[in-house]
Amino acid sequence: MSRIYNFCAGPATLPVEVLEEAQKDLVDFRGCGMSIMECSHRGKEYMAVQEEAIANINELLNVPDTHEVLLLQGGASGQFAMIPMNLLPADGVADYTNSGAWAIKAIKEAKNVGQVNVIADCGKDVPTRVPSPDALQQTPGAAYLHITSNETISGAQWKTFPTSEAPIVADMSSDILSRSIDVSTFGLIYAGAQKNLGPSGVTLVIVRKDLAAAGNSTIPNIMRYQTHIDNGSMYNTPPCFAIYILALTTRWLKNAGPEAMYKQNVDKAKRLYDALDASAFYTGTAALECRSDMNVTFRLPSEELEAQFAKESTAAGLMQLKGHRSVGGLRASIYNAFPTDGVDALVAFMKDFERANG
Amino acid sequence: MSRIYNFCAGPATLPVEVLEEAQKDLVDFRGCGMSIMECSHRGKEYMAVQEEAIANINELLNVPDTHEVLLLQGGASGQFAMIPMNLLPADGVADYTNSGAWAIKAIKEAKNVGQVNVIADCGKDVPTRVPSPDALQQTPGAAYLHITSNETISGAQWKTFPTSEAPIVADMSSDILSRSIDVSTFGLIYAGAQKNLGPSGVTLVIVRKDLAAAGNSTIPNIMRYQTHIDNGSMYNTPPCFAIYILALTTRWLKNAGPEAMYKQNVDKAKRLYDALDASAFYTGTAALECRSDMNVTFRLPSEELEAQFAKESTAAGLMQLKGHRSVGGLRASIYNAFPTDGVDALVAFMKDFERANG
Repeated sequence: MSRIYNFCAGPATLPVEVLEEAQKDLVDFRGCGMSIMECSHRGKEYMAVQEEAIANINELLNVPDTHEVLLLQGGASGQFAMIPMNLLPADGVADYTNSGAWAIKAIKEAKNVGQVNVIADCGKDVPTRVPSPDALQQTPGAAYLHITSNETISGAQWKTFPTSEAPIVADMSSDILSRSIDVSTFGLIYAGAQKNLGPSGVTLVIVRKDLAAAGNSTIPNIMRYQTHIDNGSMYNTPPCFAIYILALTTRWLKNAGPEAMYKQNVDKAKRLYDALDASAFYTGTAALECRSDMNVTFRLPSEELEAQFAKESTAAGLMQLKGHRSVGGLRASIYNAFPTDGVDALVAFMKDFERANG
Repeated sequence: MSRIYNFCAGPATLPVEVLEEAQKDLVDFRGCGMSIMECSHRGKEYMAVQEEAIANINELLNVPDTHEVLLLQGGASGQFAMIPMNLLPADGVADYTNSGAWAIKAIKEAKNVGQVNVIADCGKDVPTRVPSPDALQQTPGAAYLHITSNETISGAQWKTFPTSEAPIVADMSSDILSRSIDVSTFGLIYAGAQKNLGPSGVTLVIVRKDLAAAGNSTIPNIMRYQTHIDNGSMYNTPPCFAIYILALTTRWLKNAGPEAMYKQNVDKAKRLYDALDASAFYTGTAALECRSDMNVTFRLPSEELEAQFAKESTAAGLMQLKGHRSVGGLRASIYNAFPTDGVDALVAFMKDFERANG
């Protein structure tokens, strides 16, 4: 078996130790005579898995008692609808910040539900960036303020979060558990799992309990946060296998030490940004103060060279470096489980490529 | 490794061949150097998986061109909301039939969205049953008629489907692909995967294209069938691993031969019902003409004996025979992948138990 370096933006690299444990247990889960996929979601085998997943999240993020950890389905795209359905009253307004493609999706869906104020818009800025937290013209009495913590496509990341009198709602799909955050300062945090948490198919939501309780109670039960709080994320049958992998991945992070992991993330990103800055051949896409530690985006002198770079890096076992189809360029996604060795291999490839084509 | 007989109602037994293939490929999917959980959902490795899953469903169910196969998230509980949100206009009414616990959940959620007529109610009948298809007092001009094809908890199943001028919407979560159906006679079919199709976390929807297109376009995009049709079930990142297992499970069914499987299902159920009918000690829960081929429910002379039966059968490696907590009794769920050997083992255990305690 030859594992390649997978720079995919998500679904993304998982810790190989997690995959090996899942492989060992796949047909006979911890000696119970069934796969974890075959276990009743209300049986002791699976219940222990889900409890561990939620306990790991609580511990890693130091989630206060004021907040509830939920494991749902539907991804960030599902949350784009659930958030305004729950938290945006018919006579209210929600503030949204436009930082790029994912923020735009959140805004579009919220507008299907209620009144939205886009209070900062740098979605088309070049270099790519997120709004400055100090420059937000917030709406007095807004139901909430929505931000996209990290823009996977543009490679721009909030380095300092804004303050607000309204609850802050943050899409952390692509940087949850990659750095230290203070959960108590957020009204709601959500994240599709398929970058730092596990495979696709499960969505982490951390919601302030009072906000969930005060949410619109006339919407369908499946869309209500309170429903899922009341039922311990088992209102409907959970995506058991995805949650099992999330439990193993968060256990791996606990064992690795989250603070060490966060330092390593900064270090991995710095190696790539240093390589970009040391060369006139490569140009980072994001404004310096907004450079993402998760998705390092860059351009080459021409689209032809970018296509050649993508092709030759793939042949060299450095996979999925092609930028998102909507923006082009190159992108290296380097979440928690992506190894430093792979970053170094990319830096070496970049130097070789520049020497041959610069 | 010692596999046990798993009578769980869902998540349920999967074909051991499927589990073994998934195990073999878990760290390095078909030699690509990544787990299928790590592959981009837009890359060629995963795309081939999803295409196979949808092609298998189309072939096995002979889905006509008028209908679209979708693979979504949220389970049947999600569909309880999506169906009326899409198909029940503000000035319309939907007909629902109450056949038990799952129908009641569908009705409850639909009432959160619009006007519902419960046109038949045998949800509390003893013995358990589904409505008679000929006795339905359908509402002229109803937006649709909803039925629950098989009630997992009560063990009652529609043996003949009703006819209607309205589109028929059927929850087939617990009997999809267990018997021959004519998809063209339904407006919409939906099924959580975790009984006959694969693991939890993916939901099959087969929807008539004209109904989806005419659906309410003012609801959130994530809830619209048309959104998912337009995006080939990739509007949001799909639950890739669950769909992979669904692809393998439907391939297994194709190889086994669906007609042979359907005959085997009838035969497996008959062995259990014959055992019930041959004894005064055991009493089948469902009316004779509604007996489910998927969930065989029965009672013993006392709750004490039922508890003893559940305990001793578990010790004998016949797992999860305890009935649903809301109704008590015993339940043997025997979906496609449940082996005839396991049914025979249960019949033998029942005889022994009756001899010792009858």
